[in-house]
Amino acid sequence: MVTMKDVARKAGVSVSTVSLVLSGRGVGRITEEVADRVRASAADLHYVPNLVAKGLRTKQTHTIGLLSDSVASTPFAGKMLAAAQLEAWESGYLLLLIDTADAREMEEPATQALLQRNVEGLIYASMYHRDVQLPQLPDGIPVVVMDGRPTDLDRADWIVPDEQGGARLAVQVLLDAGHRRIAFCNNAEPIPASAGREKGYGDALADAGIAYDPALVVHAATNTADAGRAAVLDLLSRPEPPTGIFCFSDRIAIGAYRAATERGLRIPDDLSIVGFDNQEFIADVLSPPLTTVELPHTQMGTWAARRVIKRLRTPGVSLPVKNEYASCQLIIRDSVGHPALPS
Amino acid sequence: MVTMKDVARKAGVSVSTVSLVLSGRGVGRITEEVADRVRASAADLHYVPNLVAKGLRTKQTHTIGLLSDSVASTPFAGKMLAAAQLEAWESGYLLLLIDTADAREMEEPATQALLQRNVEGLIYASMYHRDVQLPQLPDGIPVVVMDGRPTDLDRADWIVPDEQGGARLAVQVLLDAGHRRIAFCNNAEPIPASAGREKGYGDALADAGIAYDPALVVHAATNTADAGRAAVLDLLSRPEPPTGIFCFSDRIAIGAYRAATERGLRIPDDLSIVGFDNQEFIADVLSPPLTTVELPHTQMGTWAARRVIKRLRTPGVSLPVKNEYASCQLIIRDSVGHPALPS
Repeated sequence: MVTMKDVARKAGVSVSTVSLVLSGRGVGRITEEVADRVRASAADLHYVPNLVAKGLRTKQTHTIGLLSDSVASTPFAGKMLAAAQLEAWESGYLLLLIDTADAREMEEPATQALLQRNVEGLIYASMYHRDVQLPQLPDGIPVVVMDGRPTDLDRADWIVPDEQGGARLAVQVLLDAGHRRIAFCNNAEPIPASAGREKGYGDALADAGIAYDPALVVHAATNTADAGRAAVLDLLSRPEPPTGIFCFSDRIAIGAYRAATERGLRIPDDLSIVGFDNQEFIADVLSPPLTTVELPHTQMGTWAARRVIKRLRTPGVSLPVKNEYASCQLIIRDSVGHPALPS
Repeated sequence: MVTMKDVARKAGVSVSTVSLVLSGRGVGRITEEVADRVRASAADLHYVPNLVAKGLRTKQTHTIGLLSDSVASTPFAGKMLAAAQLEAWESGYLLLLIDTADAREMEEPATQALLQRNVEGLIYASMYHRDVQLPQLPDGIPVVVMDGRPTDLDRADWIVPDEQGGARLAVQVLLDAGHRRIAFCNNAEPIPASAGREKGYGDALADAGIAYDPALVVHAATNTADAGRAAVLDLLSRPEPPTGIFCFSDRIAIGAYRAATERGLRIPDDLSIVGFDNQEFIADVLSPPLTTVELPHTQMGTWAARRVIKRLRTPGVSLPVKNEYASCQLIIRDSVGHPALPS
């Protein structure tokens, strides 16, 4: 069995240098030339460090488990994973990911599987802001929920998007362009994002002194272009149709574009539209490009990794449960104009 | 320390039943009622099985490492990961994923990190069909490359899309509609996908008895809508412009749509367009919806997991290196029509 000592001897460096290089923690501390020599020596000797044995000895695996429910398999939130991975990596931790691909029955065994591999902490990632039922976990394992809230709020740190603030931004850009009859095409699914965005819509109107008009709030049956089209056609049939529409999502905004085209309305000349999500490709492909609100996936990923690492680095310290509403950002493109003058 | 025996006693079942349930291999073998009782007992006793200790004893971790270069963080190939994960899971293996987010310097330490966790096999996933430089690996670890080819072809099993066959399908759908002047807007980047699709384009024309016309092959500088628009505008300026265009990708097809609009050409009445990738949302958002070729992400993911598991289950058997070109599928939508009669 080749040991780290053998590698150190062959490379002519200390064992701790070998350890830093091979654990990936040598960047910035060990010169590239030395690091290359260490790696070459390790390769020549076919050295494979055995973290299983080491884990038993030190109880530290520098590994964080990440359980995701289809995040890896959807275009939606990949940036969140990438950000968490990068943050962990730069702090000397490895993120082991298991994606359950929306199979709820996999969650508990997948969690067990991660615990069996002696992960020191866990991150639960949801594809969209929802209430997350955490499985049974042993004490002393820090847990962070990312883009979701644990049903028992005290059981874990969590970060979600500030849906309400994001919706305010979306409505504000319409108000700033001069719109007064602003509709909201919400998603009918009972998820926190729907409630939060509806609240933000109401707040922005109230701040502008505009009375809430229930005739201007509709619900797409699902978060799809087809359902959005149907709901927006409904809005456009009102005796006094809106001049601007805030859509729950970019997907629903696709439907709003279609509805506008069917009614012979030009965007933004006759109708202004704002989306939510800044989902890759949709905004780029729509014509005109869509003004929308970007979800803070990168910030959520970074925050979650930082938070779990902070807990790991302060063992024995009882940090209070922390939660965060991450700010969304307005992305201005070409789908908002001034309201048409009444003809 | 709570053992599996304690859980078995509390639940009133055998130790092997507990083992099946807690390892996730009980589905279909153990009734849900018994499985629930086992899980409740394990939870009550705060039982955490320790695979680290078990791994040392049996040398079997039933874990496969998956190293990806930004697959998890791009919309493109998430289905491939999901398929590999599902296949592994259903065979009793766990897939531990590390995504290097395109940081090449992470590949070697990430591989080491997976080996340290005693993965039994490795899958390397590329975001797109490219030549993959594998890092130094110890002997006896099965390796499969997914959506890429190892630079040393004998070092690993590999699966890539049948780019050539996919391109033939794309051109054939134009031929079948009656087109004879069929252009190819390729991607200028020197990747296997470009070469393979250009070969398939030439083959399909040759089979139809149409001479290859170099004036009908252009290269978008990058795989983007903007570069595609410029290249297709060039094509449409030819003395005898094409009536149908096969685009290297759906993104380049977005550019082709824009170029057509700028020239006042209707799709498919005046110009037919076929894409490649069947990338989520693009085909749905474009108007008219895009006829395109789907990359076999699901098949590649399933194949890779199966292949590595096959090697793990036949230890000591020297299986020859296997490679596979996975078939692409034509997705017919509304962007291909009959060529306009000469006016």
